[in-house]
Amino acid sequence: MSLPDSDFMPVPGLRLATAAAGIRYRNRDDLVVMAMPEGTTAAAVFTRNAFCAAPVSVAREHLRAAAPRYLLINAGNANAGTGTQGLADARATCALVAKLTGCEVTQVLPFSTGVIGEYLPLAPFEAALPGALAALSEQAWPAAARAIMTTDTVPKRVSRTFEVGTRQATLTGIAKGAGMICPDMATMLAFLATDAAVIPALLQQCLERAVASSFNAITVDGDTSTNDACVLVATGCLGSPIEHAEDPSYAALENAVKTVCQSLARAIVRDGEGATKLVTLAVRGATSVGEARQVAYTIAHSPLVKTALFASDPNWGRILAAIGRAGLSELAIDRVEVWLDRVCIVRDGGRAPDYTEALGREVLAKSEFTIGVNLGRGEAEAEILTCDLSIDYVRINAEYRT
Amino acid sequence: MSLPDSDFMPVPGLRLATAAAGIRYRNRDDLVVMAMPEGTTAAAVFTRNAFCAAPVSVAREHLRAAAPRYLLINAGNANAGTGTQGLADARATCALVAKLTGCEVTQVLPFSTGVIGEYLPLAPFEAALPGALAALSEQAWPAAARAIMTTDTVPKRVSRTFEVGTRQATLTGIAKGAGMICPDMATMLAFLATDAAVIPALLQQCLERAVASSFNAITVDGDTSTNDACVLVATGCLGSPIEHAEDPSYAALENAVKTVCQSLARAIVRDGEGATKLVTLAVRGATSVGEARQVAYTIAHSPLVKTALFASDPNWGRILAAIGRAGLSELAIDRVEVWLDRVCIVRDGGRAPDYTEALGREVLAKSEFTIGVNLGRGEAEAEILTCDLSIDYVRINAEYRT
Repeated sequence: MSLPDSDFMPVPGLRLATAAAGIRYRNRDDLVVMAMPEGTTAAAVFTRNAFCAAPVSVAREHLRAAAPRYLLINAGNANAGTGTQGLADARATCALVAKLTGCEVTQVLPFSTGVIGEYLPLAPFEAALPGALAALSEQAWPAAARAIMTTDTVPKRVSRTFEVGTRQATLTGIAKGAGMICPDMATMLAFLATDAAVIPALLQQCLERAVASSFNAITVDGDTSTNDACVLVATGCLGSPIEHAEDPSYAALENAVKTVCQSLARAIVRDGEGATKLVTLAVRGATSVGEARQVAYTIAHSPLVKTALFASDPNWGRILAAIGRAGLSELAIDRVEVWLDRVCIVRDGGRAPDYTEALGREVLAKSEFTIGVNLGRGEAEAEILTCDLSIDYVRINAEYRT
Repeated sequence: MSLPDSDFMPVPGLRLATAAAGIRYRNRDDLVVMAMPEGTTAAAVFTRNAFCAAPVSVAREHLRAAAPRYLLINAGNANAGTGTQGLADARATCALVAKLTGCEVTQVLPFSTGVIGEYLPLAPFEAALPGALAALSEQAWPAAARAIMTTDTVPKRVSRTFEVGTRQATLTGIAKGAGMICPDMATMLAFLATDAAVIPALLQQCLERAVASSFNAITVDGDTSTNDACVLVATGCLGSPIEHAEDPSYAALENAVKTVCQSLARAIVRDGEGATKLVTLAVRGATSVGEARQVAYTIAHSPLVKTALFASDPNWGRILAAIGRAGLSELAIDRVEVWLDRVCIVRDGGRAPDYTEALGREVLAKSEFTIGVNLGRGEAEAEILTCDLSIDYVRINAEYRT
C-alpha cells in the first residue's frame, strides 16, 4: 500500500511541512502542518469514544466556529485522558500557529496520536513551528504520511483523480493506524484533500458515506481509539464549485473519496499490529445489515478465531462458536454455511461432506482471503476487514511504552 | 487451587471411575463415569451458544425425561459442529452405558470437551466402559478432575461441608476450562455432588444462583464455549430431605454451592490459557448491574488492556479508552475514577494528581489485583474475574490442533 515517493499527486492549493519536534520520538519527523488557502471547505468525522481526546474536542469546537486554514498534527502523544490541562494544551498549540501566521486560533484544527495519559509538551511545538511554517510545500505528502506514524510499519497514502465537468480534480489522502483499531466513526487519523470546490454540506455527506464503508468497516483489535479523526478538505483551486448532489461531478467526487478511504482502511488493517493476514468477513443471509455486522464483528474479535488464522489452521469450530454466541435470536443452525474463499467448510450446521482439511489449509496459507458466512435467514449482508492475532501483537502491545 | 490427592472429601453414594480410552490423547485418562444411587436429584445449566454441542442437546433432552443415574464425560473431542451424526454418536455412548448397567438410556447424561468439528469415535467408549464400570469407587474424584482436563495445566477441585439439621453434608466439585471461557450460562464442564437430599426445584434454584456469581462472572478470552455445562447432583444418602427454601439447611446448601462454584471459577481464570495474572474488575457507581457488567466486560475483553496487564504496565489510558467505548449513553467522563487496588489512578476523568507510575507498577507487579472503576452515576455494581493476554495465549491457541 506504500507507494514510491514519486508516485503521489500534490493537491493544488494544499501545502504541507513536517518537522522533527522531538515530542516523543528522536531522530524522526513527528509534526505535520497543513495549510489551506482561503475559501477551503472542510468536513470531518470523529471518534464516538466517550473519552475523546482533547484535540478531538478542540477540533470539533473550532470547526463549528470557522473554516479551517491549518491542520496541526503530532505523533507520539495522544493528549487524551489529560482533562482540562489537555484542552488548554491543545488550544495553546493552535494559538502558536495563529500567532505565527496571523490567522484566528479557531482556524487551526489540532490532531494528536500516540500514548494516552501524558501531558502534551508545548516546547517542541514552539521550537519547531516557525521552521515548519517557512517550509510549507505542495510536495511534502510522503513526508507527512511518515511523520504521523506510531506503531505503523509503513506509511499509508493514496491518490486518485476524478472529473469535475471537463476538468481533472485530484484527491490525495494519508492515514495512520495499526492498533486500537475498531473505528466507530472514523479511524485513527486520516487526512484527505482535493482541489475541487465543494460546499461544506456536500463535502460532509460525501465523507460520512465513504467512512461508513471503509474506516467504519475494519477492526484490528476491537479497541476504539480516543483520537480517531478523518478530515477531508477541498481547497477549491480547481474552480467550478460542486453545489448540488445531482451534479455528476458530485458522484465522481463521492466515488473518489470512497475509493481512497477504502484503500487507506485496507492499508491500516494490512499493517495491523503484528498482522500476518488480511481477512475479509463477508456475512450474508442476515435479517438486517446490523445483524450481519454483529456476526462479522463477533468472529473478527474472537481471540480464538484470530489465533487460528495466525496459525493458518482452518479451525472452523471456533468460527461456528463465534457465530453461535453473537446474540442472534432463534438462529437456525442447520441453515448456516461457512466458506473459506470458494471452499464450503460448513453446510447445514455441520462439516460439509466434500470438505477436506487440505482444502481449508490451502486457503488459509494465503496472505489474503475471505471468510464467508451465510446465515440463511434473510437478504441483508455486510463486509468488514480484519487481521489475525499473532505473537507479535502481544509483544508490540506489551512493550509499547517501554 | 489444586489440592493434594489426599485432601478431598468423597460424597457418600457417588462413585466414579476414569479410563484411558484414547479418544484423542495417549497415555492419560480421558474418560470419566459417575454413578449415582437411585433417588438422586440433579440440576444443570448449559451454554447459551446457539451452536451448542451434541452432548449438550442430548443431556438436556435426557434430563427432561428421567432422573439421571450416570454421567459420562470425555475429554479430547467436543462432539460439537457435528450435526445429526454428532447427536447419534452422543446417544450411542449413552446406550452403551445403559446396556452395560441395565438403566434406561435417558438416565445417562453425556458431556464432551475438546476439539470442535470432529466426529466422536465410539470404539474407545466400547473398549473402555466395561472396565470403568467395574472400577467405580467413591475415591476417584482426584483422578476424575485430571481426566477432564484439556489445555488446563492443573486439575480443579474443591470440597466443602455444610450443616443439614444436626448432620454434616459434603459438597465436592470438579471443573475444567482454560480457554474459550466467557460463560453465558455455565462454564465448560463443572460437576458438583452432595450427599444431601434436595428436591429438584430447589437444587436447580440453588445452582442457578451460584452460577450467576461464579461461572457467569469470569472471562478469559470472551469466547463462549459450545459445550459449557455445570451439573449438581444430590445423592440423598444423608437423608433429611431439603424441601423448602425457608429450611435453614437450604441456606447452608446454597452458600456451600456458591462457595464451591466461586472457587472453581477462580481456579479456571487463574489457569486461563497463558495467564500470568488474576484480575478482578470491580465496577460501581453504575445505573444498573447490566451497565456495570458491560463496562467490566469491555475492559476485560480489550486486547490492549490485557496485553498491558501481561506487561505489568499501568497503561490506564487503555482502560479509559475501553470505558469510553463501552456504549454508555451520556457518560460524564469528568466523574469517572479508576483504581488499581487502593491506588487512585484516574480522578475527574484525568490522571489523579497524587498518582505516580511507580505506585501503579507496584500493584501490577502482583499476580492478583483489582481494577476498580467508579462511573459516578448510580448505585449499582458488578464484579468479574479475568486474566491477562500473554504471548503464551497466542502460542497455545495457534498450536492447539497441531
